Amino acid sequence: MEQTIGFIGLGNMGIPIAENLMKAGYRLKVYNRTASKAAPLAEQGATVAKHAAEVAEAGGIVLTMLADDSALEHVCVEPGSFIEKLGPGGIHISLSTIAPSTAQRLANYHAKHGVTYVAAPVFGRPEAAAAKKLWVCASGPSAAREKVHPILEAIGQGIFDFGEEVGAANVVKLCGNFLIAAAIEAMGESLVFAEKNGIDPRAVADMLGKTIFACPVYQGYGKQIAEQRFESAGFRLALGLKDINLTLQTASSSSVPMPIASLLHDRWLAGMAKGRADMDWTAATLGIAEDAGLKPKPPKNA
Amino acid sequence: MEQTIGFIGLGNMGIPIAENLMKAGYRLKVYNRTASKAAPLAEQGATVAKHAAEVAEAGGIVLTMLADDSALEHVCVEPGSFIEKLGPGGIHISLSTIAPSTAQRLANYHAKHGVTYVAAPVFGRPEAAAAKKLWVCASGPSAAREKVHPILEAIGQGIFDFGEEVGAANVVKLCGNFLIAAAIEAMGESLVFAEKNGIDPRAVADMLGKTIFACPVYQGYGKQIAEQRFESAGFRLALGLKDINLTLQTASSSSVPMPIASLLHDRWLAGMAKGRADMDWTAATLGIAEDAGLKPKPPKNA
Amino acid sequence: MEQTIGFIGLGNMGIPIAENLMKAGYRLKVYNRTASKAAPLAEQGATVAKHAAEVAEAGGIVLTMLADDSALEHVCVEPGSFIEKLGPGGIHISLSTIAPSTAQRLANYHAKHGVTYVAAPVFGRPEAAAAKKLWVCASGPSAAREKVHPILEAIGQGIFDFGEEVGAANVVKLCGNFLIAAAIEAMGESLVFAEKNGIDPRAVADMLGKTIFACPVYQGYGKQIAEQRFESAGFRLALGLKDINLTLQTASSSSVPMPIASLLHDRWLAGMAKGRADMDWTAATLGIAEDAGLKPKPPKNA
Amino acid sequence: MEQTIGFIGLGNMGIPIAENLMKAGYRLKVYNRTASKAAPLAEQGATVAKHAAEVAEAGGIVLTMLADDSALEHVCVEPGSFIEKLGPGGIHISLSTIAPSTAQRLANYHAKHGVTYVAAPVFGRPEAAAAKKLWVCASGPSAAREKVHPILEAIGQGIFDFGEEVGAANVVKLCGNFLIAAAIEAMGESLVFAEKNGIDPRAVADMLGKTIFACPVYQGYGKQIAEQRFESAGFRLALGLKDINLTLQTASSSSVPMPIASLLHDRWLAGMAKGRADMDWTAATLGIAEDAGLKPKPPKNA
Repeated sequence: MEQTIGFIGLGNMGIPIAENLMKAGYRLKVYNRTASKAAPLAEQGATVAKHAAEVAEAGGIVLTMLADDSALEHVCVEPGSFIEKLGPGGIHISLSTIAPSTAQRLANYHAKHGVTYVAAPVFGRPEAAAAKKLWVCASGPSAAREKVHPILEAIGQGIFDFGEEVGAANVVKLCGNFLIAAAIEAMGESLVFAEKNGIDPRAVADMLGKTIFACPVYQGYGKQIAEQRFESAGFRLALGLKDINLTLQTASSSSVPMPIASLLHDRWLAGMAKGRADMDWTAATLGIAEDAGLKPKPPKNA
Repeated sequence: MEQTIGFIGLGNMGIPIAENLMKAGYRLKVYNRTASKAAPLAEQGATVAKHAAEVAEAGGIVLTMLADDSALEHVCVEPGSFIEKLGPGGIHISLSTIAPSTAQRLANYHAKHGVTYVAAPVFGRPEAAAAKKLWVCASGPSAAREKVHPILEAIGQGIFDFGEEVGAANVVKLCGNFLIAAAIEAMGESLVFAEKNGIDPRAVADMLGKTIFACPVYQGYGKQIAEQRFESAGFRLALGLKDINLTLQTASSSSVPMPIASLLHDRWLAGMAKGRADMDWTAATLGIAEDAGLKPKPPKNA
Repeated sequence: MEQTIGFIGLGNMGIPIAENLMKAGYRLKVYNRTASKAAPLAEQGATVAKHAAEVAEAGGIVLTMLADDSALEHVCVEPGSFIEKLGPGGIHISLSTIAPSTAQRLANYHAKHGVTYVAAPVFGRPEAAAAKKLWVCASGPSAAREKVHPILEAIGQGIFDFGEEVGAANVVKLCGNFLIAAAIEAMGESLVFAEKNGIDPRAVADMLGKTIFACPVYQGYGKQIAEQRFESAGFRLALGLKDINLTLQTASSSSVPMPIASLLHDRWLAGMAKGRADMDWTAATLGIAEDAGLKPKPPKNA
Repeated sequence: MEQTIGFIGLGNMGIPIAENLMKAGYRLKVYNRTASKAAPLAEQGATVAKHAAEVAEAGGIVLTMLADDSALEHVCVEPGSFIEKLGPGGIHISLSTIAPSTAQRLANYHAKHGVTYVAAPVFGRPEAAAAKKLWVCASGPSAAREKVHPILEAIGQGIFDFGEEVGAANVVKLCGNFLIAAAIEAMGESLVFAEKNGIDPRAVADMLGKTIFACPVYQGYGKQIAEQRFESAGFRLALGLKDINLTLQTASSSSVPMPIASLLHDRWLAGMAKGRADMDWTAATLGIAEDAGLKPKPPKNA
């Protein structure tokens, strides 16, 4: 152990992931654009870098967890970037949810500097990250994937390998997020349907989550939608729309009509237009209730 | 025990349910329009009736498991029907998936003959019925629901009560079937998306079923769709469309726009138009593959 | 001339049609459930009947213009109905927009009484009816269609024949109303799109109506939507939804997936849920503006 | 007259437009990437340039009619481009259908070189261009718009001004193309509906085009769809999808959910997946027929 690795991007996912790496014995050099976010990690012993490139050591390993494609591309290709610093033999583990085409483009850029790009997007919300319960999808050159396996094991409860093609794990991550959004919309429709037919949506969500849909997505989101708790954003509505759009763009370039994805785009976009960008992404279902003539309920905890 | 109860409707769900009732110690009088279906039950000791009304005893209990609203209505309201035969104190446990409005209308009709209508639609395919693993949603007058509780316990692994309003359990059953159909369509879209982006859909379905969607619907149907096994119909595509239409009709009368339900209607209707009425209802997803320019694969077991 | 014909149904379409028949020299016996509606026609010389059946003479001709399938069926099949009164040789010209299957069922019923059913649904709003500018689609036995040709000429500016099959004209009428509703939704979307991109929707509607969409539907409805004038209902939103539903039902029984029709169903249903049943059917487009975060404008004429 | 103007882009729209400019007395310098396309214009007296920049004169006027945003951007910003050559006082009339945001970005780039960008997208297919029947939507600085007015008059039958904001005309053009695509899909659905209900789609299209939809879009496309003539592409399906995507992107950045546009995206994308990119864009409606179980008919002229 005692290996030093770099970590860029300390949002509500990055922080708990970095903490688990330190608990597993790694020494961390961390960087975040808003420096104050790094404070809790510094207290736990992490070195805080002033510039992103400082977290990298020649031939070393850097993880990134950034908000979107352009943030990731920017930090990779800026002059004197951490990629240049890593150089030959270096490995970049990219945890962000981005387009497969961006991953491919970045991998080519990395190759020019002798760096290997490993895609490792994760499933799970901040609580899951903190509990080391993330699920990791990995793709990229197998030698690099093997080398970083212990690092990925330190942040999640399981790793699924999707082969050499670097964008593959990103495709799978988009599949998963699309399915979650589809489940949110479908639950939203069915619970409004139940409510307008005189049945308590909480009882319906409870029954479904205990029987044919006894899995985290339906249990967690089902309860949240039934109780109309949208205020604290585990995952912001605006980020949800970003992922739906990545899916549609990737589907478009591979000629795959996905009518549910189109419908989700319209629903989430309405959420944006109605000023709900910073609410939890399940708040998109408020549009279903409004279309059915229901008035939004006041928050339960008020 | 040793109570005698009637059972009408011996399809691929009715047979295993009836068998479990006999295993639990009930004596059965059974009826099916196509009489030959009753043979296996007769061998196990059931009395086979020549007319539906014969299964009923004054003040007794009859279960029905029929294909659709009109089949159920017909057998209830024909002159000299089993409802008339049951008379005051009788209970009719209706297991079929029907419109809440049909349940309400039938309940009113029953009341005229002193019979109590209990809605008890079930979740689960024939294998689940055989394994006594059905989930039962019940609604109707509470005294009757309590009285028939042991009977419902004999056919499933859990009972969820949705109150006095007789159509309530039917609303919940429609919620559940709608959500399953939505999950089928969403999985179909995501797996075609994966396939056209170079990833084995079976690996994706497997990962999702082990992680964020670790529940029967995604595991069973996900595998089936990824492997394109649509031949043996656990639930016929035509019956799936029937349930989607019941949802849309009920949603229409309660003014609930359900865009995913509309989309499912169109997808399943295309399945009908393409001659797939008798395939498993997951065969609706073939339309997704066709829209993406994929040719249907030959059956795996061929 | 001096032929006496019967007329049932004096709504905002029936009145001007009846007036044109009188102007063309026909003597009318009229009936309306709410008798007061008949007053203006009585002043112009029409005989007002106390019961619907009274408007019919043996072997004569009766026109009906009723709100929906059930209103029409009721007046046709009630004991001692005008159909019975017409008897052998009689002709019933049905102007209402109804399901093709209802037309077929009624035609069979008529045949039992020796009466011929001619379907003659019309295109045009009340102003067009008053100006004798309706377009008539006719279907049914050709001998009867020829006989009533002068009557249809007296109420419109053109007649289109769709053959012997009695439901055919109803199918064509549903095609037309579906296309109008689709144009309303599409215009609504494009004008909100223009508005949110800083362009006056009235200028866009004006340009389109003068160029590639220089036809009544786009000119009239385009202006109405751009100016947000939804108060005076030339055609009620609830009736619009009725026609969309007739289209979907007919499409469903002939296995024709119509995704735009499904989308219109959801949009118009949201209009109902939001309390707009009695506004003009273009008020369905308010939902588009709301989904884009726009607040409804106050009426222009206020 | 005798003014010399430049023209870049000699596709099936560019050629007839350039010819009309010459007929109106303008001297043309023309350029096309595939030089052979310029031959017919050279015969009529046009000067053919070897490089795009050669068509421009300092302070002069250049028109462009290019396939898409990237083709237009490339020719404008390449080193030594025609924009640099035009310089202060020059005007660029851009006829292409592009994103409003691209127009805005280009206008800013032009301004740096003292050139004014005038957006002037046109409505009409190649036949209309040849017949000088195009409709022109113009936006940009008013002085420049006034100056080029005679040029725009030489190519169309009417000009509609949408003000100073340079992207405005592009927004309106997208509105129009979206509405045409929506009308194509809606007609496609209604004509399949008619056909499967036993009615000749040509009779329906004919009636509608003579009555409530008596305008070029419904008459021309209606006949084409009813007769299933999709082979000769007046406007390629792939270009149609490009415009639908521009609409969706612009709608997305202005937060306008447009469910019909989403549906069109899916329909046209299916056309691409099925290998119909080079057919006329009305061929997207083949998907409607296929979803209804109809087999594509052989071409009528075969």
